[in-house]
Amino acid sequence: MIYFQCDYEEGCHPAILKRLNETNLEQTVGYSMDPYCASAREKIKKAVGRPDADVHFLVGGTQTNMTVIAAALKPWQGAICADTGHIACHETGAVEATGHKVLALSSEDGKITAVQIEETVKKHYEDGSREHIVQPGMVYISFPTESGTLYSKQELTDIYAVCKAHDMPLFIDGARLGYGLQSPACDVTLPELANLCDVFYIGGTKCGALFGEAVVILKESLKKDFRYMIKQRGGMFAKGRLLGIQFDTLFTDGLYEAICGEAVKKAMTLREAFLAKGISMYGSSMTNQQFPILTDAQKEALAKDFAFEYWGEAKDGKSIVRFCTSWATNDAQIKALTDAIAAL
Amino acid sequence: MIYFQCDYEEGCHPAILKRLNETNLEQTVGYSMDPYCASAREKIKKAVGRPDADVHFLVGGTQTNMTVIAAALKPWQGAICADTGHIACHETGAVEATGHKVLALSSEDGKITAVQIEETVKKHYEDGSREHIVQPGMVYISFPTESGTLYSKQELTDIYAVCKAHDMPLFIDGARLGYGLQSPACDVTLPELANLCDVFYIGGTKCGALFGEAVVILKESLKKDFRYMIKQRGGMFAKGRLLGIQFDTLFTDGLYEAICGEAVKKAMTLREAFLAKGISMYGSSMTNQQFPILTDAQKEALAKDFAFEYWGEAKDGKSIVRFCTSWATNDAQIKALTDAIAAL
Amino acid sequence: MIYFQCDYEEGCHPAILKRLNETNLEQTVGYSMDPYCASAREKIKKAVGRPDADVHFLVGGTQTNMTVIAAALKPWQGAICADTGHIACHETGAVEATGHKVLALSSEDGKITAVQIEETVKKHYEDGSREHIVQPGMVYISFPTESGTLYSKQELTDIYAVCKAHDMPLFIDGARLGYGLQSPACDVTLPELANLCDVFYIGGTKCGALFGEAVVILKESLKKDFRYMIKQRGGMFAKGRLLGIQFDTLFTDGLYEAICGEAVKKAMTLREAFLAKGISMYGSSMTNQQFPILTDAQKEALAKDFAFEYWGEAKDGKSIVRFCTSWATNDAQIKALTDAIAAL
Amino acid sequence: MIYFQCDYEEGCHPAILKRLNETNLEQTVGYSMDPYCASAREKIKKAVGRPDADVHFLVGGTQTNMTVIAAALKPWQGAICADTGHIACHETGAVEATGHKVLALSSEDGKITAVQIEETVKKHYEDGSREHIVQPGMVYISFPTESGTLYSKQELTDIYAVCKAHDMPLFIDGARLGYGLQSPACDVTLPELANLCDVFYIGGTKCGALFGEAVVILKESLKKDFRYMIKQRGGMFAKGRLLGIQFDTLFTDGLYEAICGEAVKKAMTLREAFLAKGISMYGSSMTNQQFPILTDAQKEALAKDFAFEYWGEAKDGKSIVRFCTSWATNDAQIKALTDAIAAL
Repeated sequence: MIYFQCDYEEGCHPAILKRLNETNLEQTVGYSMDPYCASAREKIKKAVGRPDADVHFLVGGTQTNMTVIAAALKPWQGAICADTGHIACHETGAVEATGHKVLALSSEDGKITAVQIEETVKKHYEDGSREHIVQPGMVYISFPTESGTLYSKQELTDIYAVCKAHDMPLFIDGARLGYGLQSPACDVTLPELANLCDVFYIGGTKCGALFGEAVVILKESLKKDFRYMIKQRGGMFAKGRLLGIQFDTLFTDGLYEAICGEAVKKAMTLREAFLAKGISMYGSSMTNQQFPILTDAQKEALAKDFAFEYWGEAKDGKSIVRFCTSWATNDAQIKALTDAIAAL
Repeated sequence: MIYFQCDYEEGCHPAILKRLNETNLEQTVGYSMDPYCASAREKIKKAVGRPDADVHFLVGGTQTNMTVIAAALKPWQGAICADTGHIACHETGAVEATGHKVLALSSEDGKITAVQIEETVKKHYEDGSREHIVQPGMVYISFPTESGTLYSKQELTDIYAVCKAHDMPLFIDGARLGYGLQSPACDVTLPELANLCDVFYIGGTKCGALFGEAVVILKESLKKDFRYMIKQRGGMFAKGRLLGIQFDTLFTDGLYEAICGEAVKKAMTLREAFLAKGISMYGSSMTNQQFPILTDAQKEALAKDFAFEYWGEAKDGKSIVRFCTSWATNDAQIKALTDAIAAL
Repeated sequence: MIYFQCDYEEGCHPAILKRLNETNLEQTVGYSMDPYCASAREKIKKAVGRPDADVHFLVGGTQTNMTVIAAALKPWQGAICADTGHIACHETGAVEATGHKVLALSSEDGKITAVQIEETVKKHYEDGSREHIVQPGMVYISFPTESGTLYSKQELTDIYAVCKAHDMPLFIDGARLGYGLQSPACDVTLPELANLCDVFYIGGTKCGALFGEAVVILKESLKKDFRYMIKQRGGMFAKGRLLGIQFDTLFTDGLYEAICGEAVKKAMTLREAFLAKGISMYGSSMTNQQFPILTDAQKEALAKDFAFEYWGEAKDGKSIVRFCTSWATNDAQIKALTDAIAAL
Repeated sequence: MIYFQCDYEEGCHPAILKRLNETNLEQTVGYSMDPYCASAREKIKKAVGRPDADVHFLVGGTQTNMTVIAAALKPWQGAICADTGHIACHETGAVEATGHKVLALSSEDGKITAVQIEETVKKHYEDGSREHIVQPGMVYISFPTESGTLYSKQELTDIYAVCKAHDMPLFIDGARLGYGLQSPACDVTLPELANLCDVFYIGGTKCGALFGEAVVILKESLKKDFRYMIKQRGGMFAKGRLLGIQFDTLFTDGLYEAICGEAVKKAMTLREAFLAKGISMYGSSMTNQQFPILTDAQKEALAKDFAFEYWGEAKDGKSIVRFCTSWATNDAQIKALTDAIAAL
């Protein structure tokens, strides 16, 4: 059985494992105050093109989302996001557990628009009894989205303009950031993205690391005392250097870009294989997640040798399923799957 | 510089690292539903002597404490603990951030007594306006305590009897459990401890693992839906098998006991070296943490080659400091330090 | 200017004011432990037909909703409700501020159905990764709804059956309960309603009292320690007898039914006046709230002498507005308005 | 039986009741946007001498405390207070339920000092791992304290200086403010007090009103969006004018000062009666609460005709009890009690 079910089925990239082996018995101080974290921070700030940024390392995505959001909002504020957003539907109410409502906007493709956000805010402030309603306090988007789609540079520019106009921080969930930036459909670079938001994170867990997300804080007012918040929400990792070593390796010699780029390339090969077979794709993902729409017969045939995820029902009774590639996907796995697709 | 500052300055035990290397490119499902976690669970249940237990793997101590406590309490209840307890003073109010007051009882040595707990509960229910006061809802103790001390079997028996009498779950923080159980001053076994509480955890982070705490739930009413709580509080680890592999290794062939026992033995060597030099110890820790009381001259002399932690001021103007051994401490480090102590 | 804007624009019914005057300088103990509260509790239990009920008095609706909901749910659970429900859109995220997600279901008329609830729960438990999603933990409905509509006895029976099947408490927000029960469209009595839910409240603020809501708890497991919860959430009223005196008066000699019935009768007079003029009504409210759909000219004409609330835009560019009657609405006010409608 | 148990055993001052009667059937808009609230706000701002203040009306003390504190703090901050402070011991963890730790400092007489606060803050920031500890974020004091004691102008000046130096808002709980300001031991005026803190409240519930507390916000950064916070925490009173009418009456023609002054005068009469009898007083309250230390025989004798509160055990086995006067205490009640004291 070959797994294409998600992008966190293996351990980590061998280069990271090598360094974890090499450094295993070294002694360092804890809580990300060690030299490896310091080095990783510098490399990330350089890659991002923002020497003024604060960089923090957390363990996982839900933890990162709730920590950043609860730190940024006033008690009576909520976070605007797509109704398909991870915080809205796949985190067991982690944001609500910090006391804040998720203000979900309708989305077809995983994205929300500057116009939607503007209308939401405008509607709020026009209401005479606005204090009876949760105040929009920030905007959360995912890049790429949970559906594999991407915001264009223009879309990000428009969204960020609305956010700034209404003094709402823009937070980008980059759990799969590497796969987004390396997509052939992406027209934004990492430094450009960093200049189009107030805080974002660079996903490690799904992009080559054993675990870890690097939070990059750009807005001055969000920086102060963030380590208190990390500790309070259970995210202060004792052996912080493990996070430092991983991100330091990923941001050395372009490893992060290289392995994510390769994964996207493999996903495009799968995409072409499905399309060549006349199988249409759900949505327009040009990243490492691919969503073919299969008949029951096709689904059963592929399920014999491959694990993939059921995503939902298509309008014609067919099934939308998800195949993910990752930094760990190898050529043999891709060949096995493309052969199987061709044989459908 | 040799670090004795804390017990989480290195990576993990080589046996764990070996298995992480061996399994790195294997594919498994996420979120601790994999075979390694299943195996680790079985081994822990066996070691604990409770096949009925539920075992969950979390990443760190603060996360574990707040998750267990917030899952066990009603909104108007608080957790009784020692005023030296980790949840009371070193977790940035993580428990309060879940909405619950920490009900700290005065403690000299890190421990609280059954009598103190009984009096606290009795006083609460005798108060005519008790609903104006936080209700004691559970008891949290650490084994060993933050001061390195241990509860005896009798003390645990008495505390648990009070807890059961008042329907308050007893939760044991075992961040350093291995070092407690292997202490020459310990008169309780792991299965006995498991029968004297409702939920506890087996610390991995400080006891040989890269990271990880294994929560063992014994009380039936605390088991239901605990995975929802883990996810909501940011503790659902994507590549859960990393936790499984670590605990599976620690609970194979008595590794956990062996390495913790060795660390305690080395701590006893340090203890004897201090005492032999006429340096008295703060408290009565017979575990891996040792608290010598040093003059400024002694402190400065040792600080040249060794890192240790300032713990507080002693009554006579001297300093209480902490030296920790761990599974990673080696003979050369101990020799260097005992030589330095002898040379004071 | 005559106000029909809402149903809390005046003080209280003269019978209540009279008793507040009579008892003003009496001395009683605080926090609703006084004889007036005791008497009111007994009368309410009798009116409800449930001697086993617990009755508590709170000050306002939002406070009551968040207190009941946060007391009933486990941390990882949310409250199912209509997307038009007061807790979903007009309480500034009070429920989320207690840590719980509001699970809003789509509603056209303010109501949700047993089928919707069943599907929501079924979908949740069918999901393999259900612990990543907020668990439906209770159901909140309003009677009458925010749109003035009513659940039939059959609908309540069906909803309650689903709730019981899935061990989810059913909570009925009765902020306008009196106006619902006295509606000509209502086929359920107060005792019947009490047997078709686990907890509900009898609204006082909008139904004759200066302020106050009487929470009636029927489900045994929700009763224990509820006073702690009231105190913790800021709802423990010092001079509790003021609540007792008000509800005691409302539940003496059928006052509550009488004054609410009269208000509904007046609302029906308004309804007929609008319909007679060829003005159609939004929705099907047969309670004290009426929602005529007005042209701009009609709106402006009425706005000269009457205050009413803008409710939303109708499909044809007209405006939906709200007129409320209350226990305090008098014949002269009704005549003035019906004359004005006739003159449109 | 005559009640001296607490200061909220009667309704309200007749002047207030008169105006509630007069205005009962008037129609006004809700949520404290009415002319009575506007008038009361102006009178309070004038009495306070701060035209720039924001004034909000809430229903009760616990509600006010948690709303102000949760609005002022960052998530990782706590509120410094005396261990005898109302938020620390008599509000069922209402502050913790908003996610914040109460940082209780040891107090003998209900007061804390500028030195204690300075040391607490200094110790926090000197700690190298300060982010593992709750950050002191504000200071809460009561005036008068729960023990009836008062801060002098110099003490308030010193405390406020420390607060400003560390950017921590100073919040004064004035549940019994009137009784404090009218004490013969008080050397501060209302305008002076307002200039020595950032936010405080003027207690109505215990000082002549049926209920209500007037929050006066002086610090600019605490003003924005406070109405959202009131609504979210369940404190937005529907018929807000009831609060406005009450405070408007209390702040007309010096009523608040007059009635509180009279109550304190009566308390002094009681105090003298106890002292004349050789009965010593616990603490040094010169406000409306008096704490005689009684033998069992004295306690039993007085308990026949008078209700008072047991406060705690004195060192010699005697009982500390509390007698409160209030705006409602009359001469006959005082005579009956002083006669009984004399007869002991």
